[in-house]
Amino acid sequence: MTLLSALAGDPEVEAAFTDVAELAAMLRFEAALAEAEAAAGLIPPEAAARIAEACAAFAPDWPALRAGLARDGVVVPELVRQLRAAVGDPHAGSLHRGATSQDVIDTGLVLRLAPVLDLLDGRLDALDAALAALSARDGAAPLMAQTRMQRALPFTAADKVDTWRGPIPRHRARLADLRPRLLRLQLGGPVGTRAELGGAAEAVAAGMAGRLGLADAPAWHTQRDGIAEFGAWLALVAGGLGKLGQDVALMVQNEVGTVRLAGGGTSSAMAHKANPVPAELLVALARHVAGLSGTLASALVHENERSGAAWTLEWLVLPQMVVAAGAALRTALSLVANLSFPTKPA
Amino acid sequence: MTLLSALAGDPEVEAAFTDVAELAAMLRFEAALAEAEAAAGLIPPEAAARIAEACAAFAPDWPALRAGLARDGVVVPELVRQLRAAVGDPHAGSLHRGATSQDVIDTGLVLRLAPVLDLLDGRLDALDAALAALSARDGAAPLMAQTRMQRALPFTAADKVDTWRGPIPRHRARLADLRPRLLRLQLGGPVGTRAELGGAAEAVAAGMAGRLGLADAPAWHTQRDGIAEFGAWLALVAGGLGKLGQDVALMVQNEVGTVRLAGGGTSSAMAHKANPVPAELLVALARHVAGLSGTLASALVHENERSGAAWTLEWLVLPQMVVAAGAALRTALSLVANLSFPTKPA
Amino acid sequence: MTLLSALAGDPEVEAAFTDVAELAAMLRFEAALAEAEAAAGLIPPEAAARIAEACAAFAPDWPALRAGLARDGVVVPELVRQLRAAVGDPHAGSLHRGATSQDVIDTGLVLRLAPVLDLLDGRLDALDAALAALSARDGAAPLMAQTRMQRALPFTAADKVDTWRGPIPRHRARLADLRPRLLRLQLGGPVGTRAELGGAAEAVAAGMAGRLGLADAPAWHTQRDGIAEFGAWLALVAGGLGKLGQDVALMVQNEVGTVRLAGGGTSSAMAHKANPVPAELLVALARHVAGLSGTLASALVHENERSGAAWTLEWLVLPQMVVAAGAALRTALSLVANLSFPTKPA
Amino acid sequence: MTLLSALAGDPEVEAAFTDVAELAAMLRFEAALAEAEAAAGLIPPEAAARIAEACAAFAPDWPALRAGLARDGVVVPELVRQLRAAVGDPHAGSLHRGATSQDVIDTGLVLRLAPVLDLLDGRLDALDAALAALSARDGAAPLMAQTRMQRALPFTAADKVDTWRGPIPRHRARLADLRPRLLRLQLGGPVGTRAELGGAAEAVAAGMAGRLGLADAPAWHTQRDGIAEFGAWLALVAGGLGKLGQDVALMVQNEVGTVRLAGGGTSSAMAHKANPVPAELLVALARHVAGLSGTLASALVHENERSGAAWTLEWLVLPQMVVAAGAALRTALSLVANLSFPTKPA
Repeated sequence: MTLLSALAGDPEVEAAFTDVAELAAMLRFEAALAEAEAAAGLIPPEAAARIAEACAAFAPDWPALRAGLARDGVVVPELVRQLRAAVGDPHAGSLHRGATSQDVIDTGLVLRLAPVLDLLDGRLDALDAALAALSARDGAAPLMAQTRMQRALPFTAADKVDTWRGPIPRHRARLADLRPRLLRLQLGGPVGTRAELGGAAEAVAAGMAGRLGLADAPAWHTQRDGIAEFGAWLALVAGGLGKLGQDVALMVQNEVGTVRLAGGGTSSAMAHKANPVPAELLVALARHVAGLSGTLASALVHENERSGAAWTLEWLVLPQMVVAAGAALRTALSLVANLSFPTKPA
Repeated sequence: MTLLSALAGDPEVEAAFTDVAELAAMLRFEAALAEAEAAAGLIPPEAAARIAEACAAFAPDWPALRAGLARDGVVVPELVRQLRAAVGDPHAGSLHRGATSQDVIDTGLVLRLAPVLDLLDGRLDALDAALAALSARDGAAPLMAQTRMQRALPFTAADKVDTWRGPIPRHRARLADLRPRLLRLQLGGPVGTRAELGGAAEAVAAGMAGRLGLADAPAWHTQRDGIAEFGAWLALVAGGLGKLGQDVALMVQNEVGTVRLAGGGTSSAMAHKANPVPAELLVALARHVAGLSGTLASALVHENERSGAAWTLEWLVLPQMVVAAGAALRTALSLVANLSFPTKPA
Repeated sequence: MTLLSALAGDPEVEAAFTDVAELAAMLRFEAALAEAEAAAGLIPPEAAARIAEACAAFAPDWPALRAGLARDGVVVPELVRQLRAAVGDPHAGSLHRGATSQDVIDTGLVLRLAPVLDLLDGRLDALDAALAALSARDGAAPLMAQTRMQRALPFTAADKVDTWRGPIPRHRARLADLRPRLLRLQLGGPVGTRAELGGAAEAVAAGMAGRLGLADAPAWHTQRDGIAEFGAWLALVAGGLGKLGQDVALMVQNEVGTVRLAGGGTSSAMAHKANPVPAELLVALARHVAGLSGTLASALVHENERSGAAWTLEWLVLPQMVVAAGAALRTALSLVANLSFPTKPA
Repeated sequence: MTLLSALAGDPEVEAAFTDVAELAAMLRFEAALAEAEAAAGLIPPEAAARIAEACAAFAPDWPALRAGLARDGVVVPELVRQLRAAVGDPHAGSLHRGATSQDVIDTGLVLRLAPVLDLLDGRLDALDAALAALSARDGAAPLMAQTRMQRALPFTAADKVDTWRGPIPRHRARLADLRPRLLRLQLGGPVGTRAELGGAAEAVAAGMAGRLGLADAPAWHTQRDGIAEFGAWLALVAGGLGKLGQDVALMVQNEVGTVRLAGGGTSSAMAHKANPVPAELLVALARHVAGLSGTLASALVHENERSGAAWTLEWLVLPQMVVAAGAALRTALSLVANLSFPTKPA
């Protein structure tokens, strides 16, 4: 963990993107696959039980996983090898049956995203409430509206806070809209047809989806629109908070002074400074997530039945987007808690 | 119109972004505003009638509009000046009452986007049908699935076409989801509070929204999430078509030859060439729109009650995104019409 | 020409990107190729003379060129067809000998960029001089430096202007550095080897480079680093001017008032407003060019011996970057001419 | 360190961006500042000696540094506080004299970049040599050139390798060009004027530059063009390698088979696969760095005398760009070592 994460990170969101969290999600996939296949009569119940047991007790050889990822471009082949050894005879062959790397990775991702969506939605709700409370307390304060960096006409603090609150219910509605397009089981087998599962394929998929709390859906491994839509949503959220941050940074200027921000950052050279650090941070995070959302959208060009290039690009981009959007929400909550509108503008 | 637009343009969509179309939409705004204000008793009915008449007959001084835009950063002040002269005494003062430039521009934009949304949705529907027909005709053709640029396992043309069709219903669902968040009246007055309209504000807004076929909503001039969400949707659509294009470009390679694309482009130096021009174009358009979507998301950082910087950035970016996404749909339709899967792969 | 170009365009730079300008550059290529090939003994001198004559008198069938571009993805095959008809027997076959579309397009691009580089460099020089004059006139004015949006310590207008001037000589040095990497003849023939020109290839290339005032160089058609480097330079220039614009927009705030900007933009609703339109425009242009520079860099992934996808992406992106950077310089010159530091800050 | 870094990371480059490396560079700054100030007579020689000693022995309170960074937006105020405590009376007040946070951070960054530039340049040189060797060994192999995804005309492996080598000397020339614009001392004091150092300012700067092996230069803290130029260079390098990767991924297709890539990645579901993992990775890294270069260019809009927003954005973006470009070079070297052109194309 670098120092910078103290400023721009988000421990709660980062927890979804650790190696340990990814491994746990992949193990959930393999156990649920085995259980659903046993229920569908594809593998013996004892195999599923043994696989679940092995997943629960699994202690990976991390260096070998790293080496496997470096060689294969994806960690799953080596993970399956280690896990088969852990399962042992005679059930090792029942592990990962009919599945492919992308099933494990993509389903593992959405399994980890599910609680993150709840977390972010909860923070949006809390931010909405915090802004409402701010407006209730300080809303009557007179304020000068500013258009194109110039004084326009008077309005009130409540009017200003309304402009920050406005997008929040829309962000939450969008999240509800996209959730079923994102939190879907990925199960396709080597080329996405589930052919290896034969006539039991739909039953296995339904069984897995139920066990994992995900929507059942046809394989989407080459259709990355759910991922890109989520990335775009993160940019919308971070962008709206960037607007809040930019406004506060402008209002807290000494010459303007229409808001007060408690707990300002100190300077190594100027003892009188109280810097609006969280306000500036919100702007930086908004621009960062915006740029990455463009890159993520370019990864929609996912060639053929699996693109190592486009898929790896997602891995480089999406996790940091989620963390940055989470950090923006965390920062906005803290900023609003420290914000007040003086009754008389300075 | 440049030569390049013959390849990468879209005349139907471009029609929404001409100066003439923008002017027409702005005139619709001013007429509807006057009518709604007359209905609410804010201006005399004769004023509204005269304004509607003047808008219908208005012949702008284009060079003066250009000069006004260059000076004011927005065309509206000069337009209102010209339009007031056209309305004449005694009703000139009733024009644009309680409105501001951004009301005219933003509402004018969504008025032009409304039919574009229908157009794009119709093309998505047509593409879905075309792909279904392709699958019905050629779907039994055997095909080799390719993962990570290598032969994987056999599947069929129908399986392949399914991966292209999959996102289309989701794109259409997203469009339905976002439509009410985009096609909203913008009416806020100078600083977004509608204060200049007094107690009649809500009636005027409702009257305008009804007349213009837009959703009624509070002023959203500083809340650009509807715009950015639409931009992200364009990137999703173009990205999915980029995947189709990339797949076709790969399959049509001479050494692969698993699809045939009629009407290939010719070469100035090699008479034997038949280049998959539309397939490549889809990839280019996808990457272009993706990059622009990141820039548009950065324009969410819209400072204070009107940001000349962020707003102008939208103007530079959004129209070309809509045109490019439209061109991608147009190109995809044409490409699919020329596509066939030979029964026996070469 | 759209209204928006009155604000954000640049007529001098746009002139390099018209269809007529592109055609003229392509004709210069074909004439120079023929002359160099005649000098090398590859074609008869009479053929070169006839080709030069036909190029000078050429009147294209524009609709057919548009149709050709739409079909072939590049205008050259149809242009060569028309031009061969204009040359007529017996010399038509000597036209375009050993060349390919990309030779014509890429060389045609750099031929048009050459004077643009001079134009932009001249504007940088003029801006440096204008800032020097501003500093000489107003430099003694006291000013409050601002760090992290808060008052820091006093300095002077001269100190401030220095921060705007600082990058300009570096931009000019970078332009001098990159010029020979950009203004290079592209001549490769169908696959970049000049094989069709046999032993005369190097002589033809040298002859063309000399005639066209370009550096002689091996074919670079698949090596787009010169193009991307130029795009990055445009982003550096526009970005530095964006900083100037952002500073002015902040200083010209009514509450700050440490600069005066004559000729402010007017408002349709607020008669007292004088908006810093050029300052905001500089910020918008900077962010626009920055985003496009990322897309242009992604077009470096130019597959095989010619990528229709990556090359077309350049066409969509580069011209508007050059225009936007030109517009930023034009705007900055105008802004600085209207800028003054009051002796006493307000 | 996450699993993904095994694939897409670069341990040698990452070493420049650890907290420990950053701290070490900041301590070098403080020690050199003290020494240069002592040499200029601004502080007693004993103070400089004591400061150097304290820097050499310094053991930070990391949690307090993290808390300081989170509060102040920059780690320096808390670092200086800890370091002053370590220096102790009577010399604590001589530490950090006349400097500000940005001096420490920016100079600390370029101190760490200096060896990275050498490292990357060395890898470019090695890659050039490896490609030359590949060409010497396999260059006579016949190959089919491909334009627009279609067979064009025959050429040779040597011709192909030439297209990959071509940009490398230009990248190295660019690096030599930009080096003096990047590796510059940043010393400006609170607002960039070095006013706190009085008449000794230039001597102190020269003394520091000499001690630190950096170019002496006026303060550049608000002029981020050196940083953005370096970012653009990273995108050029990664982009060129992305082209190499894309070509190899295309050539190694089973149906094409014009190169062989030893050590292919394995699959969890298909035993016959040998995936061109490094080739695909190069494409992903190229697109990632390209996108980030656009964001970095947007950070040129660095408002006033220090922008917390734009500066923080650089921190989020630049380090991962350097690591990704380093990883691309590392990967390309490994890929070329495993590459061969069969004498007879499959």
